[in-house]
Amino acid sequence: MKKDYEHIKVIGFDADDTLWVNETYFRDAELEFAKLLSSYETANKIDQELFKMEMKNLSLYGYGIKGFVLSMVEMAIELSDHTISVDTVSRILDLGKNMLNKPVELLDGVEDILKTLSKTHRLILVTKGDLLDQERKLEKSDLTSYFHHIEVLSDKQPANYSKLLDHLDIKPAEFLMVGNSLKSDILPIVQIGAKAIHVPFHTTWLHEQVHENQTKRSDYKTISSLTELKDVLG
Amino acid sequence: MKKDYEHIKVIGFDADDTLWVNETYFRDAELEFAKLLSSYETANKIDQELFKMEMKNLSLYGYGIKGFVLSMVEMAIELSDHTISVDTVSRILDLGKNMLNKPVELLDGVEDILKTLSKTHRLILVTKGDLLDQERKLEKSDLTSYFHHIEVLSDKQPANYSKLLDHLDIKPAEFLMVGNSLKSDILPIVQIGAKAIHVPFHTTWLHEQVHENQTKRSDYKTISSLTELKDVLG
Repeated sequence: MKKDYEHIKVIGFDADDTLWVNETYFRDAELEFAKLLSSYETANKIDQELFKMEMKNLSLYGYGIKGFVLSMVEMAIELSDHTISVDTVSRILDLGKNMLNKPVELLDGVEDILKTLSKTHRLILVTKGDLLDQERKLEKSDLTSYFHHIEVLSDKQPANYSKLLDHLDIKPAEFLMVGNSLKSDILPIVQIGAKAIHVPFHTTWLHEQVHENQTKRSDYKTISSLTELKDVLG
Repeated sequence: MKKDYEHIKVIGFDADDTLWVNETYFRDAELEFAKLLSSYETANKIDQELFKMEMKNLSLYGYGIKGFVLSMVEMAIELSDHTISVDTVSRILDLGKNMLNKPVELLDGVEDILKTLSKTHRLILVTKGDLLDQERKLEKSDLTSYFHHIEVLSDKQPANYSKLLDHLDIKPAEFLMVGNSLKSDILPIVQIGAKAIHVPFHTTWLHEQVHENQTKRSDYKTISSLTELKDVLG
């Protein structure tokens, strides 16, 4: 292990869009949703209004597919001024069920790197999604045996990570987080003095986007695929 | 500490209906829901059909208020043969939001017993509800400081508890679970050889009810209120 990472005891992996495809399914559902409401508004406007509704409900519903579906239903009723049919509501519920039933599509090099690192480190899955949904994906992915356990955080703020490290009984310098979201997986980790490696995914949810000046002075590494992780860690 | 419990290192507390009122709010929401659909069916039939829908969706949605709301919407559309208005759907969404915004009503003796036990044991909150919802209730309850952390399980089967003990790095004999649900908090715990204390709540969700013969030979203690816990543990 290279000098920068020699103290690492636990490696946390984000799940969605780090190990497997996720955001793509949300984008697909949004396209379908816009089609359902196309007689009311343009797809662009619908996207914007849905995002607003999700943000309005975020503190109440949190992250994950179920809250997303509830926000779609509420927004469709509001946008249509209570004129959509309940058939449309039914179809929105089905969009959510389809998302929950999607197969798991692993990203490049995932299994190989987990197999290697699980021999020398304790690996944990760190997610702010829904526990049941993440367990289901982990099972479908056949990656369960590489992870010590799943940690669900209600949000990925510095305070949530500090609490996690307390609970794992390790110091920040002993923790490395690997993930696709600068906002959730990288910047808060750097802020608490732990290590972070960024693996961007091609699509990022607007809520997860950060301004360039937020990342300028931050100390983390970026790789283009998990397959590079072995070389970086050494 | 009495002999039976002298090896206990970690005490897990169920949250809903063990520390604070919960089931009552679900029952209230169901009454409201039956009123919304009263032109279609009797309250009794509506209760039954809603329960069926919840069970049908349980493996997909899991436990918690959001899944409950999605099941109410789906069931209302189905029961009405797609004739309910979207206003009714709106009101169902509001029922869910009201539940999420409910104040936390602590049960008898909760704070006192947690204060006492937290001095000698590591206390954890063990729930199969929604993490965000449980964190919110814990914060509103002012009980946060007594708990080492929250453990969310996707279900409370023996295997989930065994995994939890592995993760906590303790033996079954070192774990005591306190909760109101025989099915979720007591029987699976007894099955893996850990200790359990049952504190019944006056209302039990049908899904959590067990037959008498399932509990006959089980080795656990029952108390009528958390205030008795001090005497039992000694």
